Amino acid sequence: MAEPALLAAAHQRQADRLPVWFMRQAGRSLPEYRETRAGTRMLDSCFDPDMVTEITLQPVRRHRVDGAVFFSDIMVPLKAAGVDLDIVAGTGPVVAHPVRTAADLDRLPELDPAALEPITRAARQTVAELDESVPLIGFAGAPFTLASYLVEGGPSKDHAVAKAFMVGEPELWERLCAWLTGISSAFLAAQIAGGARIVQLFDSWAGSLDEQDYRARVLPHSAAVLASLPEGLPRIHFGVGTAELLPAMTEAMGVPAADEVPSRVIGVDWRTPLDVASDRVGGGTAVQGNLDPALLLAPWDVLAERVRAVISAGAKAPGHIFNLGHGVPPTTDPDVLTRIVELVHTEGPRIRKDLS
Amino acid sequence: MAEPALLAAAHQRQADRLPVWFMRQAGRSLPEYRETRAGTRMLDSCFDPDMVTEITLQPVRRHRVDGAVFFSDIMVPLKAAGVDLDIVAGTGPVVAHPVRTAADLDRLPELDPAALEPITRAARQTVAELDESVPLIGFAGAPFTLASYLVEGGPSKDHAVAKAFMVGEPELWERLCAWLTGISSAFLAAQIAGGARIVQLFDSWAGSLDEQDYRARVLPHSAAVLASLPEGLPRIHFGVGTAELLPAMTEAMGVPAADEVPSRVIGVDWRTPLDVASDRVGGGTAVQGNLDPALLLAPWDVLAERVRAVISAGAKAPGHIFNLGHGVPPTTDPDVLTRIVELVHTEGPRIRKDLS
Repeated sequence: MAEPALLAAAHQRQADRLPVWFMRQAGRSLPEYRETRAGTRMLDSCFDPDMVTEITLQPVRRHRVDGAVFFSDIMVPLKAAGVDLDIVAGTGPVVAHPVRTAADLDRLPELDPAALEPITRAARQTVAELDESVPLIGFAGAPFTLASYLVEGGPSKDHAVAKAFMVGEPELWERLCAWLTGISSAFLAAQIAGGARIVQLFDSWAGSLDEQDYRARVLPHSAAVLASLPEGLPRIHFGVGTAELLPAMTEAMGVPAADEVPSRVIGVDWRTPLDVASDRVGGGTAVQGNLDPALLLAPWDVLAERVRAVISAGAKAPGHIFNLGHGVPPTTDPDVLTRIVELVHTEGPRIRKDLS
Repeated sequence: MAEPALLAAAHQRQADRLPVWFMRQAGRSLPEYRETRAGTRMLDSCFDPDMVTEITLQPVRRHRVDGAVFFSDIMVPLKAAGVDLDIVAGTGPVVAHPVRTAADLDRLPELDPAALEPITRAARQTVAELDESVPLIGFAGAPFTLASYLVEGGPSKDHAVAKAFMVGEPELWERLCAWLTGISSAFLAAQIAGGARIVQLFDSWAGSLDEQDYRARVLPHSAAVLASLPEGLPRIHFGVGTAELLPAMTEAMGVPAADEVPSRVIGVDWRTPLDVASDRVGGGTAVQGNLDPALLLAPWDVLAERVRAVISAGAKAPGHIFNLGHGVPPTTDPDVLTRIVELVHTEGPRIRKDLS
């Protein structure tokens, strides 16, 4: 059978189909999700394999996307390790004891791989339900983004406490990130063990850093997580507001050997056109993105033109996975997402062919 | 007497002194500000010339900065025009009736210049108290940022409603921005009439746009505001997250005639090093910035090194005004700002000289 379009694009041997999925497609914006989740706390749902399977499959059934992103949360492996945290509706992750001292670091628990068994089981169940053409997409939060939550104690607009810790306590920072590298890697490994065939490393907040700090204090840890992946497994590296960081974030995925099948995808937000991003990161890297999620509220004809523009810009890269430039906003009309998928599938190949 | 260092830098005839001021230096982080404001609503304080004068002078007395930024708010001219809005502590500007239809636009009031008389009076009083070497810095919100508040009805993380209106209702958008261009220009004119000698146009949210939308739907309006300024008056154009927009935002300041004294300054956030920003926007433009405000929480020796790095990068531009890359966070220890000013003044000239 043919290679799934999502994997083909990541491997830069894209055929007719332009693959599309949406970050945060599983959950939040779907009424069937709200029904499934009703009465269950977010973190409880993430450790319930049946619920994870159902929610992961919902957008595939509804939108006919080319990938099923595993329903979970970047904080899940921290919870599995025993960190006292909750995901509070309307707020986000809240950590009971922020990590800011050597003593706090000493208290960080070791992650028992068995604690991630429900994750592997959920992934395996999901893959059993998925068509072969729709790979399961695993994901994890990158060390910097996880560290920001742990140091701040919760969401932060400017990550000031985390950044001050990073530059002011470099040894403690390295220890924290080394621990988080293990957490991130284990979370990805658990999903891959269950059958995930492509993964995305989310460094949601990396865009708050300048390139110098990113390279010195963050890149090595993200690179270690990415290096822990099985060779050749397609990997997407994504952050928001990363215009100045795209080359460094691409480097974090490692330099492929000369005879290696390409497997690197750089995720790009809507601020940088995909052709510009592709030029900026150099050859050997596919791109993912990058429709501005804010435009999901625009009239359909305007939105459709933007979708076509993204397809055209993406056609200039060695591979393109269509996506939004950030996650699906919770208030999105799901029908708009379905129409975008249809448009990408029906017009994508023609637009790409006309430009080639 | 010598030209004030702030104006000299903007005019690219910088002498010994490296000028420094802080966005939002007037207010919030200062205990004397909280004392002065106690019991007075934000918008009421902005129309009270004595209070505005006092608050504008406070950071000059305390930190010895090279410019006194007028204490006000970008929403003040809208209030003066009669728009029903309030600035709610902990939330930000809240507009009673969001502007989303032609009927809403019809209801927008005309701004009677007399309503800005307290602004001019406050500026005049302030200038009378200031040393000649410390110019008053006027400012206004740019049309896009003001439009976002009006269309959204308040602060927004993604500006989705405003952006959808912008692309979905282009004629209404143009009408709204034309009206806001008048508002912004009048607010600047009122401050200049009172003696402001340099101004900053804040397009706080422009960085949420891609370059194409910025150029098509935003740049012309900001350019119109900037074109309304007296010829040769130094002007700073600033936004956050504008890595991809720096050339366009520089163009919005207009192309200087061959025989014109330079007067354009591009404000840069901390994500783009000042030397990179200067190269990106081309010659003829000074730079302002760009210490990461999050680092104000870092230990002093680390922070001092970052201050020196900003000075070094800025030395490669045709003119440099030292500032943060965004506004002063409300929780900042004021003593840290004072130490930064001292460092910029004592070490700045030497660092710049060593590099020249």
